[in-house]
Amino acid sequence: MPLTAERFAPYGDVIAPTIAAAQAMNDGRFERFADLARVDFDAANNGHVALSIARSRNPTTFPYRFDLVERHPQGSQAFVPLGAFAFVVVVAPPGESVARQDLRAFVTNGNQGINYHRGTWHLPLIAMAERQAFLVIDRAPADGNCEERVFEQPVVLDAP
Amino acid sequence: MPLTAERFAPYGDVIAPTIAAAQAMNDGRFERFADLARVDFDAANNGHVALSIARSRNPTTFPYRFDLVERHPQGSQAFVPLGAFAFVVVVAPPGESVARQDLRAFVTNGNQGINYHRGTWHLPLIAMAERQAFLVIDRAPADGNCEERVFEQPVVLDAP
Repeated sequence: MPLTAERFAPYGDVIAPTIAAAQAMNDGRFERFADLARVDFDAANNGHVALSIARSRNPTTFPYRFDLVERHPQGSQAFVPLGAFAFVVVVAPPGESVARQDLRAFVTNGNQGINYHRGTWHLPLIAMAERQAFLVIDRAPADGNCEERVFEQPVVLDAP
Repeated sequence: MPLTAERFAPYGDVIAPTIAAAQAMNDGRFERFADLARVDFDAANNGHVALSIARSRNPTTFPYRFDLVERHPQGSQAFVPLGAFAFVVVVAPPGESVARQDLRAFVTNGNQGINYHRGTWHLPLIAMAERQAFLVIDRAPADGNCEERVFEQPVVLDAP
């Protein structure tokens, strides 16, 4: 379904300009949509916030079959598209376990990024075209910050 | 002059895919250019890392005359263009004072973002077209995190 801030609230934040958040900055030469998402991270063991880029090699084809979800127990993770393109987000609420009936699929409107809250279950990034780049804002180092669950039967995701 | 990581090193980081940093991720469906910049911030007084969007209203016209530079003593500040477009960066090294002869102007190649290190003097954001959006990654709240210096004579920046 279409991604909105309200629908995504149990899982994370939507990063997009909204009229409500607009403020003037730099003498009115810019609009600022401030504090759209907060980066949450565990600072222990040299934990810090890193900026990275992820770029798709191969587009995902639909129907897409997957059996693996992941979560990051040590911090939030944001993906912001570096261009105007839509992508698909599949999530389930934070918690020790995850069931396939808890999964929800959202499609962005082409101008939205997302920030998974710490512990939100999600599919690895899904891109719908080649060489689409995302800025990634998450905790580094990555060691120990990814848990995975594998479903016995694959989940089938239809084209959005 | 054209922005490169080497030239910009005294002031901050360049955020762009580089061959050296490429790693496969998600079973090779993506390339990851990891840890291109580190977010540095003072966590005191509810300091946290926020994701915001800044969007230009009016393009800067050249020659551009300015007399004000600013710096953020409580953390780094990154601007990553949400699309392929160039912008201009004017900086001077961190330090208590800033002299006009220390200013350096860089133009990005259209696929670069930047991260000012804590304390780097810089011009407020300069965009060369309307409605260009940047993701901003910096410390919040903003109160007390901006120092300004005003030059007696304006500095004139020619078109890049």
